[in-house]
Amino acid sequence: MAGKPSPQLAEAMQAIAADVANLFDALLPVPDDPRARLVEAMRYALLGGGKRLRPLLVTATAAMYGVDRGTALRVGCAIEAIHVYSLVHDDLPCMDDDALRHGKPTTHLAFDEATAVLAGDALHDFAFEILADPATSGDPWTRAELIQVLATSSGWNGMAGGQMMDMVAETTTFDLHTITRLQQLKTGALLSASVELGAVLGKVSPEGRAHLRGYARDIGLAFQIADDLLDHEGDAALAGKALRKDAEAGKATFVSLLGPDRARDQARMLVDQAIAHLGQHGPEADLLRDVARYIVERDH
Amino acid sequence: MAGKPSPQLAEAMQAIAADVANLFDALLPVPDDPRARLVEAMRYALLGGGKRLRPLLVTATAAMYGVDRGTALRVGCAIEAIHVYSLVHDDLPCMDDDALRHGKPTTHLAFDEATAVLAGDALHDFAFEILADPATSGDPWTRAELIQVLATSSGWNGMAGGQMMDMVAETTTFDLHTITRLQQLKTGALLSASVELGAVLGKVSPEGRAHLRGYARDIGLAFQIADDLLDHEGDAALAGKALRKDAEAGKATFVSLLGPDRARDQARMLVDQAIAHLGQHGPEADLLRDVARYIVERDH
Repeated sequence: MAGKPSPQLAEAMQAIAADVANLFDALLPVPDDPRARLVEAMRYALLGGGKRLRPLLVTATAAMYGVDRGTALRVGCAIEAIHVYSLVHDDLPCMDDDALRHGKPTTHLAFDEATAVLAGDALHDFAFEILADPATSGDPWTRAELIQVLATSSGWNGMAGGQMMDMVAETTTFDLHTITRLQQLKTGALLSASVELGAVLGKVSPEGRAHLRGYARDIGLAFQIADDLLDHEGDAALAGKALRKDAEAGKATFVSLLGPDRARDQARMLVDQAIAHLGQHGPEADLLRDVARYIVERDH
Repeated sequence: MAGKPSPQLAEAMQAIAADVANLFDALLPVPDDPRARLVEAMRYALLGGGKRLRPLLVTATAAMYGVDRGTALRVGCAIEAIHVYSLVHDDLPCMDDDALRHGKPTTHLAFDEATAVLAGDALHDFAFEILADPATSGDPWTRAELIQVLATSSGWNGMAGGQMMDMVAETTTFDLHTITRLQQLKTGALLSASVELGAVLGKVSPEGRAHLRGYARDIGLAFQIADDLLDHEGDAALAGKALRKDAEAGKATFVSLLGPDRARDQARMLVDQAIAHLGQHGPEADLLRDVARYIVERDH
């Protein structure tokens, strides 16, 4: 299922990667005092690469409703900061104990464990600092709503809850229903929130949001199934991280429960379904359609 | 310098301890699924005790301006959640490696290290979830401002930055100026934010806020000097945690730099100065005055 993004998507991915890196760089200068090491660790984690899928979803959704790109980009950086903090903490020795991320030493190896814990915590605040800043939106309703979406999707009722389920999965055998719920929280919650944040910026109607939420839910699950397939069949050098850790730990995944063929069918079905949720939209939703297709066709 | 709180303050401390525990209990029910362990760890850390000084400062400040206690209490719980998450992470083996907190095993010992990291992260979100919830304030300006104050005071430019400086202090000898800056960030930022959050709720004028900020800055520093004195002379059983760790690590503190007598004088001078900042207020500020006196007279 390896494949390349469409030309339009490839261009958008290049643009978002550059814009996100530039904005992080501008928002987080290294102070000339003993806090320098903390901010350096934050910058190391933030600027280490990644597909910037979450900022892309924010900006692509917001653009459908004519939202200013600068505004959407700030919101995209906020959710990316949450994603990055979660990776820094997940990689810790007491968690997944990973040595590589985006092909580089993980933050606790490049710095030290205490600095990595603290850099994750500070990135966590940084996300909310960006959203609460009037520079993100002059409208306090919008700021408060953005923050509510982000906090809910990353806490115990979202990403952190999914991470806990993932830890429980190491000693308990989950069925397909529970694995689905786990993944909807662990990765799905932030991917859905990305689309939702774009919709908040676009002041989208409740009905329009319901469709976008359906799209986001489907691509979130498709993304995870594709991740499991890549973990099963993929190339660690391309991925820039260790693979097949779930299988070695005996953890249930979509691939172990469904087998690779049915898992692949399921992912493709979810993509079709995600695209169907965009049925009311014209070409302005093409980028979101391309993202959906790419999510299951990517090779890393 | 051991002493008891005034009767008025003793009553307020009892009330805030009960109200904070009740609200945490109500806001965070244990879910009936594999996330239960995460929420149990969050509740263990939240409900483990503590003086609830930060919620007390929020409610006492807000009460001066006639703010509804239920509203102030939610905001107090939000900043307490930040304080508690920071303790959970600070106690980790890779950080201070502490075994006791409020006389009970620290969260990573009562649960495990990975759960403690995750519970801290989820408490961090929980704080922002509370503030972003329209139940905290129907006014989105207020919600957005509360969040901005809290995020700024806890991130790299506040508490986390101070924590980093504290880690650097283990290998570098800081002078009094740098120790003061360290402590203004590490403990001072959240104590100041508590008063500031009360002022945001009370829609206090810029001039009134400047005075409250002066009060908060002074009690924050006095609090830390008192902490250093307690660490130097105090009773580990009363404190419910290990003492004299800074001295053993050869870390500079107010007591090591000034000596206990001058440190004590300095703390008392700061308390007088804090109380002077409240000069424009009548009896409605008596609780804040009592807090200032108690901060340097407490025995744990």
